[in-house]
Amino acid sequence: MHASDQNDPHALPSAGPPPAGPPPSAPPPEEERPSQFREEEEERPYGVEPEFVEEIAQQLRVGRTGAVRAELEDFHAADVADLIEQIDPDVRADLIEVLRPGFDAEVLSYLNADLREEVVDLFEPKELAAAVAELDTDDAVDVIEDLDEETRAEILANLPEEDRALVQENLAYEEYTAGRLMQRDLVAVPQFWTVGRTLDYLRAAGDDLPEDFYDLFVVDPMHRVVGAVRLSRVMRQKRSVRIADLVTDDLHTIPGTMDQEEVANLFRQYALVSAPVVDPAGRLIGVITVDDVVHVIDEEASDDILKLGGAGDTGVYSATLDIAKARVGWLVVNLVTAFIAAGVISLFEATIEQIVALAVLMPIVASMGGNAGTQTLTVAVRALATRELSAANAWRVVGKEVAVGLINGGVFAVLVGLIAWVWFGPMIGVVIASAMVINLFVAGLFGVLIPLGLDRLDIDPAVASSVFLTTVTDVVGFFAFLGLAAAILL
Amino acid sequence: MHASDQNDPHALPSAGPPPAGPPPSAPPPEEERPSQFREEEEERPYGVEPEFVEEIAQQLRVGRTGAVRAELEDFHAADVADLIEQIDPDVRADLIEVLRPGFDAEVLSYLNADLREEVVDLFEPKELAAAVAELDTDDAVDVIEDLDEETRAEILANLPEEDRALVQENLAYEEYTAGRLMQRDLVAVPQFWTVGRTLDYLRAAGDDLPEDFYDLFVVDPMHRVVGAVRLSRVMRQKRSVRIADLVTDDLHTIPGTMDQEEVANLFRQYALVSAPVVDPAGRLIGVITVDDVVHVIDEEASDDILKLGGAGDTGVYSATLDIAKARVGWLVVNLVTAFIAAGVISLFEATIEQIVALAVLMPIVASMGGNAGTQTLTVAVRALATRELSAANAWRVVGKEVAVGLINGGVFAVLVGLIAWVWFGPMIGVVIASAMVINLFVAGLFGVLIPLGLDRLDIDPAVASSVFLTTVTDVVGFFAFLGLAAAILL
Repeated sequence: MHASDQNDPHALPSAGPPPAGPPPSAPPPEEERPSQFREEEEERPYGVEPEFVEEIAQQLRVGRTGAVRAELEDFHAADVADLIEQIDPDVRADLIEVLRPGFDAEVLSYLNADLREEVVDLFEPKELAAAVAELDTDDAVDVIEDLDEETRAEILANLPEEDRALVQENLAYEEYTAGRLMQRDLVAVPQFWTVGRTLDYLRAAGDDLPEDFYDLFVVDPMHRVVGAVRLSRVMRQKRSVRIADLVTDDLHTIPGTMDQEEVANLFRQYALVSAPVVDPAGRLIGVITVDDVVHVIDEEASDDILKLGGAGDTGVYSATLDIAKARVGWLVVNLVTAFIAAGVISLFEATIEQIVALAVLMPIVASMGGNAGTQTLTVAVRALATRELSAANAWRVVGKEVAVGLINGGVFAVLVGLIAWVWFGPMIGVVIASAMVINLFVAGLFGVLIPLGLDRLDIDPAVASSVFLTTVTDVVGFFAFLGLAAAILL
Repeated sequence: MHASDQNDPHALPSAGPPPAGPPPSAPPPEEERPSQFREEEEERPYGVEPEFVEEIAQQLRVGRTGAVRAELEDFHAADVADLIEQIDPDVRADLIEVLRPGFDAEVLSYLNADLREEVVDLFEPKELAAAVAELDTDDAVDVIEDLDEETRAEILANLPEEDRALVQENLAYEEYTAGRLMQRDLVAVPQFWTVGRTLDYLRAAGDDLPEDFYDLFVVDPMHRVVGAVRLSRVMRQKRSVRIADLVTDDLHTIPGTMDQEEVANLFRQYALVSAPVVDPAGRLIGVITVDDVVHVIDEEASDDILKLGGAGDTGVYSATLDIAKARVGWLVVNLVTAFIAAGVISLFEATIEQIVALAVLMPIVASMGGNAGTQTLTVAVRALATRELSAANAWRVVGKEVAVGLINGGVFAVLVGLIAWVWFGPMIGVVIASAMVINLFVAGLFGVLIPLGLDRLDIDPAVASSVFLTTVTDVVGFFAFLGLAAAILL
């Protein structure tokens, strides 16, 4: 132990929390605390506050660019990106002008893709290439990949040759694959090295190393990955220990062609922090770190949510016309559905003419079916995405959902039946109750069968399930209610 | 450089990818590759395949428990948890029996919460306490926190005293806070230490250290965090360098009381891998690592998706009656909405009696409004969750959504108007076209105002937005269409 040179037991190096109970002496008042390393986290744990955004906008409007530059100097790239996103579009170009000298291209990699193009257009290609050249390969690829052909080519042409080659190699992989995500700087060591030799190598390598890394990869003479070693395991070993003896039990190599969703699942399943990317011959070509994976997980979740809502892939920063266009497709599909439902209703025009109460009540059956079905559908789509629902338990889940449909169908049949009875008489109550059971049963069944079927056909269940389901619950809802009414009441 | 003892340039330690172009020699055929460290990743990159689950179930049914035990011996806890989840419930208890000797409690922390209780009940409290004692504090808390009071108390009573104290300290924090997530084993060093002294300390500490760690935390004599140092930065420095000179620019400390969603946002914003948790006096009490945060991100995304779909917090592993109960609430709310809409229709019974075509067409207006509104709502809810939508840009987004509503309202007014004209005559076309513009405008406006308003009232917009929106679009849809019809056609 190394306690000899300290008086306060709290300053001991520790592998655990401080002793419980009150501290031996009361902490000094707030203002006396040493602050050279501490940020005031309490007010703004992350990101930028709306008031701050407005203040910067004001300063830009009155031309106080020097003050703004000073204010933003120590800002994290992610916070600068947030500021660019949230600031009034009128002063966005002024803000970029302030950031221009020595622009940190990392800001672009944090920026919403819709705004990235707008911001990129404010720079000269040469200027931008210089900024992008400072980035890690994965961030450079992230910034470049979504730009239009022309801008992308211009930036690539202005990159230093070595960077360009690496970026182009990543871009040669399809979008949304591991090859696009991987970082090319990494630390690989031969199997026979010791801890001491590895430390000497790392100390001598200096700037050639990636800025941060979490695992060392052990490679054979053909540069094929044979193991991974966590840094914390290297650090606690004596210099004489062989690196090959420290490799983790389970090595998870990622082919460059693996879909990014699969990459995310792999990281999630085994709580990985970094993983080696390999070519078809098993040779180490890059590394994916968990921060990229967090980004992918967010992207995939957003994607699923927006698809389920039929909102396409536009967001709050997209241009109005792009948003409108992106949503028309889904609305057209819904229109077709709505007309199919209208067609069903029109079959019973004569019935409705005789009993107008049917027109009043018919949306209730369809709406309850749609909602109950959406509940089932949402659970099924999410369970498919998180792999909780698979061929192994599909039939059990179908059975459960049908049972839920019948139970809740029964509950609401009684409830709605009674209300309709009071409002329009007993027979209408019986008709709507029967239609309700039928439609909630159908909703449960199709709510899980539709996403399962689409998944089996390799169609993303998030994007298309909803429309099929609503068609089913509308058609069945109107047909059961109006059909039963025609049969029983007339 | 250390290249002298190797012949193949690929075996060089490298801080970059291997040279591009074809390898100097063709890779040996697949079966000749050294495999002691390599898994065959191609077939099963993660998790368990349905066929494998079925095979294990078969073996359990015929009582071949020895074979199953051998098969599962080297399995990752996450994969074992998947197997328990997906296997036929009939043989689940048999599977647990196989896993019982030296049971790895980490399996429980990966297990779906609905099944955890079921599995826990198969063990003796003492047995379980012994398994839980092997876990890191955060995993132990994760396993214990959702169990019923009695089981929880039994396990706690059987834990070794030191573990129990730590677990209870974490449990003293509210659910869904940083205090519940934090790991208590960590590495803290005083400011004045050097790299060399830190390495010596780590080498001597042995088993007292956490199994894996990514940052060292620098503390002052009062055990307050003054900085964080990434391991990769320590490793590349000479022994004489002071640890305090290696701290990262930005230190993000997390109060134990911080909501887990905020923790996730902080990790996401600054691409953190681990972060120190502090008590109100700024003293280091624990560490949160990114793998826990990935779990939180998934949980929050699932939550938002299920809430938007009105599916409550049950999943595919919940009991049928629990699922049915969880969904009833939302369906009751929807029923009220549906009856409000029915009430609006009933105001126009006389109109419908004269023109039955109105009954046929009226669901179209309501349905299109509901869908267009849901598109807007989904984007707004997600943007609020990811902080892309805030007070700074709220009015701009509202303006944009209203514009989108008017544009698409115009498009579909023309389309639907023409179809209705052909089907039922020109004046009905005019009526439905006008109603469509009105309803899509209202859908855009309320699709963003409702989530913004709920967010301002501190109500989760994901859970309640949908029902308010559908009420608005149904009421406005039916009222505009039938009202205009009554005014113009009669």
